[in-house]
This record gives sequence, structure tokens and C-alpha cells, in this order.
Amino acid sequence: MPFARDQWYVAAYGSEVGRELLARTVLGEPLVLYRTEAGEAVALADRCVHRRYPLSESRLDGDSIVCGYHGFTYDQTGTCVFVPGQQRIPRTARVAAYPVVEQDSFIWVWIGDRERADPTTIPRAPWLADPAYTVVRGMAPLNARYQLLVDNLMDLSHETYLHGGYIGTPEVANTPITTEVDDEKGIVYVSRHMDDAECPPFYARSTGIQGRITRWQDIEFHPPCLYLLHSRIAPQGVYPPAEGPDSDAFHAEIVYAITPSTENTTYDFWAVARDFAIDDESVSEYLYQSNHTVVMQDVTALNLLEQVIASEPDKYQELSINIDTGGLAARRLLARMIGSGTVGAPQ
Amino acid sequence: MPFARDQWYVAAYGSEVGRELLARTVLGEPLVLYRTEAGEAVALADRCVHRRYPLSESRLDGDSIVCGYHGFTYDQTGTCVFVPGQQRIPRTARVAAYPVVEQDSFIWVWIGDRERADPTTIPRAPWLADPAYTVVRGMAPLNARYQLLVDNLMDLSHETYLHGGYIGTPEVANTPITTEVDDEKGIVYVSRHMDDAECPPFYARSTGIQGRITRWQDIEFHPPCLYLLHSRIAPQGVYPPAEGPDSDAFHAEIVYAITPSTENTTYDFWAVARDFAIDDESVSEYLYQSNHTVVMQDVTALNLLEQVIASEPDKYQELSINIDTGGLAARRLLARMIGSGTVGAPQ
Amino acid sequence: MPFARDQWYVAAYGSEVGRELLARTVLGEPLVLYRTEAGEAVALADRCVHRRYPLSESRLDGDSIVCGYHGFTYDQTGTCVFVPGQQRIPRTARVAAYPVVEQDSFIWVWIGDRERADPTTIPRAPWLADPAYTVVRGMAPLNARYQLLVDNLMDLSHETYLHGGYIGTPEVANTPITTEVDDEKGIVYVSRHMDDAECPPFYARSTGIQGRITRWQDIEFHPPCLYLLHSRIAPQGVYPPAEGPDSDAFHAEIVYAITPSTENTTYDFWAVARDFAIDDESVSEYLYQSNHTVVMQDVTALNLLEQVIASEPDKYQELSINIDTGGLAARRLLARMIGSGTVGAPQ
Repeated sequence: MPFARDQWYVAAYGSEVGRELLARTVLGEPLVLYRTEAGEAVALADRCVHRRYPLSESRLDGDSIVCGYHGFTYDQTGTCVFVPGQQRIPRTARVAAYPVVEQDSFIWVWIGDRERADPTTIPRAPWLADPAYTVVRGMAPLNARYQLLVDNLMDLSHETYLHGGYIGTPEVANTPITTEVDDEKGIVYVSRHMDDAECPPFYARSTGIQGRITRWQDIEFHPPCLYLLHSRIAPQGVYPPAEGPDSDAFHAEIVYAITPSTENTTYDFWAVARDFAIDDESVSEYLYQSNHTVVMQDVTALNLLEQVIASEPDKYQELSINIDTGGLAARRLLARMIGSGTVGAPQ
Repeated sequence: MPFARDQWYVAAYGSEVGRELLARTVLGEPLVLYRTEAGEAVALADRCVHRRYPLSESRLDGDSIVCGYHGFTYDQTGTCVFVPGQQRIPRTARVAAYPVVEQDSFIWVWIGDRERADPTTIPRAPWLADPAYTVVRGMAPLNARYQLLVDNLMDLSHETYLHGGYIGTPEVANTPITTEVDDEKGIVYVSRHMDDAECPPFYARSTGIQGRITRWQDIEFHPPCLYLLHSRIAPQGVYPPAEGPDSDAFHAEIVYAITPSTENTTYDFWAVARDFAIDDESVSEYLYQSNHTVVMQDVTALNLLEQVIASEPDKYQELSINIDTGGLAARRLLARMIGSGTVGAPQ
Repeated sequence: MPFARDQWYVAAYGSEVGRELLARTVLGEPLVLYRTEAGEAVALADRCVHRRYPLSESRLDGDSIVCGYHGFTYDQTGTCVFVPGQQRIPRTARVAAYPVVEQDSFIWVWIGDRERADPTTIPRAPWLADPAYTVVRGMAPLNARYQLLVDNLMDLSHETYLHGGYIGTPEVANTPITTEVDDEKGIVYVSRHMDDAECPPFYARSTGIQGRITRWQDIEFHPPCLYLLHSRIAPQGVYPPAEGPDSDAFHAEIVYAITPSTENTTYDFWAVARDFAIDDESVSEYLYQSNHTVVMQDVTALNLLEQVIASEPDKYQELSINIDTGGLAARRLLARMIGSGTVGAPQ
């Protein structure tokens, strides 16, 4: 299964990367992540050039990694600066260093031809590092191909069935969606505006709204990795004013980063940023627990689906309907990216 | 490895199928089994047409299954009667419904071309639902190909070595067998009549016989699935009368249904029906525990043998002797069935 | 991955082989080992000719093995002497018997063409059965290909990084080695002589030396299986006398037998024989625990490396430097052996 190379992917939260070595595999490439003494995040290929030992099983000496098997030592550019038993260091002794950008609380890495890496093309999720918002978040390793998570998130009608009692109500599955694709920018938009809906516990308990609501779900998917769900919750019939801030509504910015690890495993980074009750830790705790439960419901379902699909390579058939329009558009943009990327190992 | 399609197989005991969804895989085909409110057993393909989610992970709404992922709903014929977000149901939205017959306490399903399904061809095991008999039974999942269980059951000389202390005595391995094959009806008969044999604990404790016995084992194998062992136990020298009932002997009807699940896994359904001590629950308990132990001795041995055979595809060699005549005949009938079945997915 | 056939391999310690059946797989060939009533070690192919059941799951009757499934019985030459249900024993009913030599506490078996088996070519490790030495030893199953263990042992500079605090000090990695290859006899010699080195705990606690040492490591590898490390430890500046015994030094004879089990698993037999403190059980206990810890550090690292290498068949690249000279020579001799061996199953 091909991946979309020459793209930025979230490898970790910034808070995960420090002076302990962190191993992550992105698009099948093993990385070791750490932070220099000056605080800069570094991503190197996680294999010693000598005998392929994982550098993540090693230790830091200042800003350099000392391989735990025979002591080959690499600086933060991946250049080998020490080998045992001799003075001369072979000219080819270096490991790949990956372009890294720390932004919006994420560590983004570029997988592909590093000459093509342009940090200005990284899509934004500013709420995650904005003091006007309070954020809960986590990361769930998924034993399923990333496409299943893309399908899952692009079609929220599953909330009604898989996440009933948390975020799903009958109106989600029953309300038609509108889908738009910006082919030039490579973004898929899916909107579902429910004018008169039941308020699910996730929002009832966190906002304090009693009674029915007007609930908007506006998705932006920036393939291959960043998924944004702008969630607007208001008492039934309350719409944004013609001018000025939408202060009678509650806003949650739900962010997912979908990072393929291997063909059949994925990192599922998730965050919920809110502009209400921002100092209320009980709301944070409630939203964390609820969204964690919802994510794990997805993880259980998608891990099962991966087993199903992996077991029936020849018979794998689908039937798509209107709710799948966004997911199919996402597949199309991903296929285009896969077709236009570089091929082979990083330089 | 091919299976014999266009055949009836036992998918479950009738008592296992109710208002909870039951997943079983037969000949590699995933099934979901349940019973309608009117009590009829139903077997549908266990994959939603939308995104392949297992319907067995879903719930019943009346006689219909509501998919747990996006709510696609199927009635007992497999026809889709609801999809989310739209009124129109695609014409091709249906899952396969398998012919089902409930008989002799078993749920039989037809795997193959449903036009060829004829319930009158299902072989019988009437003792399992006859009040004149008391039955103990169980089902053991086997991590081995079904052929190994066929081999095992067709050659009971292994009782002496693998089941000593339960059902094996020296006379089983030492007494020659007679084998007959009815090619037209597709049945293999193997008989071993021991005139003067030690009585194994299985029969000594359940019948109360003291001293040596005359022990007859008469096997009928109806490939691919149903195996019957007519076991006659009597005090040494007591034979059936020329006329009238054989009332001085004890009869146990040992029934196995051998259902291939995948290439390397099998459902081993087993039952012991007896015409003696039919109201004695301590005898039932003893025979249940003993036969369960015997079945698990077979399961342990066959699971090990599966690992051996799977590890040596090139070197796999056998040497057959007289005791294998019945097993070789069974293989021949199975090979004939495999050759004449339909190929491909069910309609 | 090919193995070097027509060679002697250590299948077990003599102390492991007795009247209980022992299963070992060597070069992918399953063996069952036992000792006759007269005390002779026997190695037979661990598969019944009838239906491939492992004979190691069976029982001994005198010097014969009775298969646990149907009772086929083999004497110590592998000849079948009983089959159930008939008098005639098929002429081809025999399992392979492997040439066995018990020497230096090891059970050596010949894998290959038995006509080529010559016991005089088995390399020696006489300290393991010499009363002038005290021995601690063990066997660790390795989930890694044997070549990784050969690499590991031929380049001891890894002691500094992987075994620091036990046997590694900075001088090991920093002192150059000398390597010699005897192509005719098929032996690789690697020597590292440290004139002025820190004394690692392994030797400080066992010899009682305080202060710095002169430490010699002289390796002899007799491919494919036997690895000897002659370790000489003396107070710094103490060298062997021109004549007479080297009685001011401490000698440890470290022996490994590297036996490929399957492509990706290996038996790692290890022993430490010493000529000092030979009656001090606390030294034995300390050296056993320390060397066991060191072996398990290698096992952990090599099991990890096996996973790395198995996951990247296409990208597997190495970079070799001076310390690898011995390992590369060992690979060359092994490749030569693999090229000249017989092909196929044993007779």
C-alpha cells in the first residue's frame, strides 16, 4: 500500500519530545525524536549505520546520540562523530535527519525529498496553542490502516450508532450533508447543520444547555494528515449575528492528526479545544474522559474492521451512498498526492 | 486448500442460537446467526455491504439487524430496509441469506449454490432429539484443519495411546477393522468388534458392568460433516438376540459434526447419547466430563499436529497401514465432493 | 536462508539428556533426544512416519519410543519395531537416527550426510570437563538468526556499551584488535590485548584484584558452532613468564556454542570455566549470575535486531569498520561451508 510522501505529518505532541529518546514510525520509516539542550526538536532515522541497531534504544550525550550497541555517535544533523576502535570516521557514516517544525503544539516532520519541504504549507490548528481556548487531548495507536480513520471521521453519521450516549443523536444520521472540494488547495469541506436537535451528553454537561439545540458540524480535511471539526452548539434557534462575535454559542474545535505508521497501523492524535468554561477543570476532565471513550470506541471498531479487510483481499467490496461523499473526495485527493510524491527512501 | 462446497454443515447447536447475535465462520464464510421473534433460525452473511463492518457486532431490532457502525438495517432475508441520511435504498444493498435447517438439535446451513440446497439430503442423528436417550454434548474450537479430525475419528486405534484411562484399552489397537464404502450414498463404514475386551472406565462407571466385555464400534461417516459411532457394550459373550430388542446390551450413540471454519480451524461438535441410566444425572455428569477430557486430548494433539504440518509443507510425508483404510476412504469421498462443488461466493 | 550442513552442532548439554524425551530443532530439523538404559545418548528425527506426530510427545519403553498417537514404536536406531493392528511392519517404517558424540559436556549431533560424519573433526573445549576448572553454564533460546550472535561475539567492543557495569570498560572499545584467519583449518582468531585497563566488576569480584589490570582477550571461532574466548586477567604489568606456568594470572575460558535452530531462532549455549577460586561457591554463583545477565543483555538486543532486520528486507544496509574484521571473516568461512555442504534431508 503506497503512502503520500513529500508531505508533513504529525509525529508527536511537542510535550512528548524531550531529553528521553522517543521512537515513532511514520510512513514505515523509523524515527528517533529528542530535544537538544537548547530546546530544539530533532528527528533522526532510528537505525545505526553500522549494524541497524535502533538508536532509540541508546542514550543522549549532550545533543548527540550514542548507539547502545557499539557506541557509534551521531550529532543532531545525523552526522557520525565517533566510532569505536579507530580515529577515522567513514565518510558515509550518517543517518537521515528529517525536517522538523514545531507548531500548534504538534511536532511536524517531513517525509520525503527534503528539498521539497516547505514549512509554510503546514496546515494550521491555532486553537491548540491559543490561551483563549482550553484543550484536552491524547493519542491512540490504531491497529488499522489510516484510510479507515479517514473514512470514519469524514462521515459523522456513525456518531448516532457507534457513539450513542456520548456525542451521537438521531439527528446526526438523519440530517443530509453538503460537501465541497477545493481541488487547488487540496481541502475537503463537509457540513451538517442541524437546526433542531437533541443535545448529546458531551455538550449538555459541558455547556450547561438544557433542552434542544442548534448544532453545526463543519469539517475541513487537509489531506493527508490534519482534520478539523468546527463544532458550534447553541440553544435551539440561536444563530450567529450578522456582525460581531458569535458570543451566544459555544464553540469546540475538534482536531485530529491522522499519521500512518505502517501499512496497518496509525497514530490517532486527537484534541478538543473549547472557548467556554475554560477555567473549569471539571469540564476539562469530563471532556477528556468522554472524548477518550469515543476515540476508543472508534479504535475498537476500526481495529476489527482492519482484521476483516485484511482477511478478505479478494472479496473486499463496498457500497457507497450520499453520506460517503466526503470520504470519497478525501480518497481522491489522497490518491492524487500518492501519485505525485517522490518514491524511495529519504536522502 | 479447497473445501467441499454445496453441502450442509452444522453451524451451531439450536440452543446456541437465540436473540443474541452469534458469529460463526463456516468454510471461510463469516455468518451471523439469530432467531426471529417467531423462533426461526436465520443465517446471514456477517458483513455490512457499506463498509464491511461485522453485523454480529450489531443489534437486533425486531427481526432485523441494525449495523453498529452506520445503521444499515437488514431484514431476515438479507434485504437492506434502511440506510442513513437518505430515503432511497440502493437496489444492490443486500447480504446473502443462507438456507438453514434445524434438525436433530443442530442448526444446519448450506454453503454453496442455494439452488442446489435439498434439506432431504441432510444426514440424521435422531438420538440427539429422542426422549428415549439422554445426551451430553459440547463444541470445541480446533486450531487445526478439519482433515486431521477426520483422520482422528476414522481410526480409533489411537484410543489405546491417546485416551488410555478413559476409553482406550489394548484391545482397540490390536483388533483388526473391517471397512466398507458405499460410493453411491457417499458413506464410509468402519467396524471393530472386540469379543473379549477390558472395559474402560468410561463404560465401567457408566454402565456398572464388572469384568470383561464384548465391545462393538460401528462407525458411519457421512462426509463432509456428520460422523456417527454406534457403540455397543455388553458383558463378555452377550450378543444381540436373533429377534427383538438388544436389551441386554448398553448402547451409546457418539456423534461428531466436523465443520471446517477456516483452512486451519475447525468446529468440533460432539455428543454422547445413551439408552441406559437415562435419568441418572451423575452418569450424565461423569460422561460429560470424561468425553470432554477425551475431546480435549484430541484437540491438544491435533493442534500440535497442525503446527507440525504447517511448518513442513515440502517434507510432509505419511505412511499408511491397515488401520488407515477408513480414513483414506473418507479422504477419497471428500476429494470427490470438492471436485464436484460450485466455485466462488454464495449468491 | 541456507545453513551449513554436514557439520557437527551442539544440540544439548549431556546433563539435559536422560530418560525424559527432549525436543530440539537443529538447522530446522526436529530431533528427539534421550539416553538408553545403558547410558548412550540417542538423537532421532522427531516425527512419526505414520502421521507426523512428534515422538517427543511420546514415552520410552526400554530403549524404544512408543508414539503417543497410535503406538508406532521405534528402537534407538530409528527402526520401527511395532505398528498397531497388524503383524507386518512396513519396510520403509523408520525414522532418521543422527550421529551423536558426547564430548566436553556437550551432545554433538551431525546434521547432513551421515557418511561424511567424522567425530575427530569436532572442535574441543576441554576445560568444560576438566577437574582443574570450575564451570558455570546455561543455555538461552534466542529469537534471532544465528549470524547476529556470531557478529556479536566476534566483536567484543560492544562490551563497553551493552555490558557496562559487568564486563565492559572503555578500554575494550578503544583498543585495536588483531585478526588472523586459518583458511585451511577454518578458524578465525581475534585478539585484543589491553596492557593497562580498568578491571570490570566481573573480574574484580571474582579474582579479588584491586586496581588496574592487564587484560587479554583471545578469541578462536571454529565455525559453524564453537566459539572460545581465552580470557587472561592479571595485575597491571604482569605478563606470562618466558617458561613455566602462567601462575600469577587468572584464566577464564569462555565457551559459546552457537546452534541454529530455525531461520530466525538460535540456541545460545554459554559456559565460563575458571582456574581460580575453583572451590569457592560464592564465586561460582556470582559468575553465573553475572554471565547470565550479560547473555540476557545480548538476547534482548539481538531479538530486537532480528525484528528490525526482518522488517526491512529491501533496505538492509550495513557499514563495517576495523572492529568488524573478525565478524566478516567468520561470515566468509560460514558462506564457504554453506556452499560445500550436502543439500536436502538427512538419510
